[in-house]
Amino acid sequence: MSSGATTAVASDPTGLHRVLDDHAVLPQAARRLDTRRELWPDEVRIRVERLNLDAASFRQLERKHGGDGAAVRSEVLGIISERGKMQNPETGSGGMLVGTVEEVGEESPLGLRVGDRVATLVSLTLTPLVIEDGLTRWDGRSEQVPCDGYAVLFGRSIAAVLPEDLAPELSLAVMDVCGAPALTARVVDQYDAPTVVVVGGAGKSGSLSLAAARDAGAGRVIGVVPHQAEAERLEAAALADAVVLADARDPIALRDRVVEAGGPADVTVVCVDVPGCEGGAILTTAAGGTVIFFSMATSFSAAALGAEGLAADVTMLVGNGYVPGHAAYALELLRAEPGVRTLFEERL
Amino acid sequence: MSSGATTAVASDPTGLHRVLDDHAVLPQAARRLDTRRELWPDEVRIRVERLNLDAASFRQLERKHGGDGAAVRSEVLGIISERGKMQNPETGSGGMLVGTVEEVGEESPLGLRVGDRVATLVSLTLTPLVIEDGLTRWDGRSEQVPCDGYAVLFGRSIAAVLPEDLAPELSLAVMDVCGAPALTARVVDQYDAPTVVVVGGAGKSGSLSLAAARDAGAGRVIGVVPHQAEAERLEAAALADAVVLADARDPIALRDRVVEAGGPADVTVVCVDVPGCEGGAILTTAAGGTVIFFSMATSFSAAALGAEGLAADVTMLVGNGYVPGHAAYALELLRAEPGVRTLFEERL
Repeated sequence: MSSGATTAVASDPTGLHRVLDDHAVLPQAARRLDTRRELWPDEVRIRVERLNLDAASFRQLERKHGGDGAAVRSEVLGIISERGKMQNPETGSGGMLVGTVEEVGEESPLGLRVGDRVATLVSLTLTPLVIEDGLTRWDGRSEQVPCDGYAVLFGRSIAAVLPEDLAPELSLAVMDVCGAPALTARVVDQYDAPTVVVVGGAGKSGSLSLAAARDAGAGRVIGVVPHQAEAERLEAAALADAVVLADARDPIALRDRVVEAGGPADVTVVCVDVPGCEGGAILTTAAGGTVIFFSMATSFSAAALGAEGLAADVTMLVGNGYVPGHAAYALELLRAEPGVRTLFEERL
Repeated sequence: MSSGATTAVASDPTGLHRVLDDHAVLPQAARRLDTRRELWPDEVRIRVERLNLDAASFRQLERKHGGDGAAVRSEVLGIISERGKMQNPETGSGGMLVGTVEEVGEESPLGLRVGDRVATLVSLTLTPLVIEDGLTRWDGRSEQVPCDGYAVLFGRSIAAVLPEDLAPELSLAVMDVCGAPALTARVVDQYDAPTVVVVGGAGKSGSLSLAAARDAGAGRVIGVVPHQAEAERLEAAALADAVVLADARDPIALRDRVVEAGGPADVTVVCVDVPGCEGGAILTTAAGGTVIFFSMATSFSAAALGAEGLAADVTMLVGNGYVPGHAAYALELLRAEPGVRTLFEERL
């Protein structure tokens, strides 16, 4: 039963009613969220079985604790219990979750039913979350976190029912990055047979973006990877016309290698979760081109000032994780492209 | 005479040859630049008479030192001498400068002549700079910093000769923000008579963006300001169809006030240099709309995750300070719109 009537605060589709900070901010920007079990009438509660931490966030925690899994686990537990959500204070990022619908408020617009197995497509950074098993089944060494607990979705949240033909970990990994291929396809479609460069092409969002670029009519697709093993994996996946080996933090090297492989790019998609790739991406992109930044390690000022400093007339997009139909499109690419599926399964 | 022959390192149009860091980064990302007086063949040296610090950077320094001008001056001097450029380590931003061309390398492609009075249109964050007068003529209480020293431009830098019909401080202030109106006009032009909201409409980039939106065919132009005095100034300037009073950090208030004034926006332009405006800008923008972030206080992850968390299908642009023809266009708007000119002159 929904217990919205027990509180004087009306719910807002954005989740504003669960923000505990002193001044009005949206849940994503909030220091702390209200994690009460009782639902407002437009909310949904999920029984959580697995978190998928954002890659940039997990890497930062791994580096910070020198790979000590127990310390990583303890920090994640601390963040969730203190903030009422999983948001890495360093990277600002979260991740997503898989679970089963436990209760649906009578005014929820999401169309979910009790028992549906779903993945949330809104970030953990704004999702009220309570962990009830101390994360004892997680060793702190992987982004995939098995757990027991509950989470709350708002009126304007998005969740997708998991497809029955794919393993849930696989669906979750795809949905976690599904904004990237959808936005890549949209941008590629605005050009005539463009040259598309995907930095981090062997990764999850990168391989899907390569497949999306080709699907959307790219003339030439170039994948950039940081070392030989990844180059071999990406070549085997047959998702790119050329695979380039370059450190994306070295702008001159990146530009030169991409030009040798048929660049510069009309569209550059940045999918690597390391800081310092802004200059190289800009320098690799032709005048009139577009750079899409999907990495949470992107620095706004480095991008803005980098382009200005290079007198680069490029459009720079903040990679929005939401594009209508994004989850269905990403799953479709995974099913259609064996190379994408293999790269994903190797990373699970 | 150029003395490029005295060094073994060849120059690169991006200025890479003056980076002193251990690994290859562009000058903007560098910790420290080589400020030697001697020019490589494609460089230009400017005798500097005035710096114009980036507003977000100056505000941060002012807050940090509680308005103590001597402390602000001392920190700015320290940054420049340590890094060989003016780049606020907190905000990552710099500003620009005015000066006179002192020497032109024989291979410089910039078309400048000795004696030209110019403003640089690339950021101070990547411009080798030496201060020779200890900033003794500056009280540390204004973004405009009179000084004596020299700076170096690279092959790919941009500088504009100051127009003779305008005071140099005025031209400099206009050129400092000239990327904003040019990009605003380009985006507005992609919509049919759109509703345009400029957050921070009474400021420098804001007032120019309002004028540009109208010039580019906006159907309705709404300026958002934080307090009554600014509202009165903006109303007197007659640059907007509606002036809205709202705290841009309060997303719900911003959305509600803008909707009352004829919103939501098709195009939202963020020109306020305070953190925390991402959610409000996204929430104020209709599906299919565009948000242009010009503020250096923008957080990349707050924008990306905020849009995802709101399931907002909006295009988000990193405000690129360079658009071809931007300086001439901004000066043209200033000359054509008395309201813009008045707002600028009040802020000098």
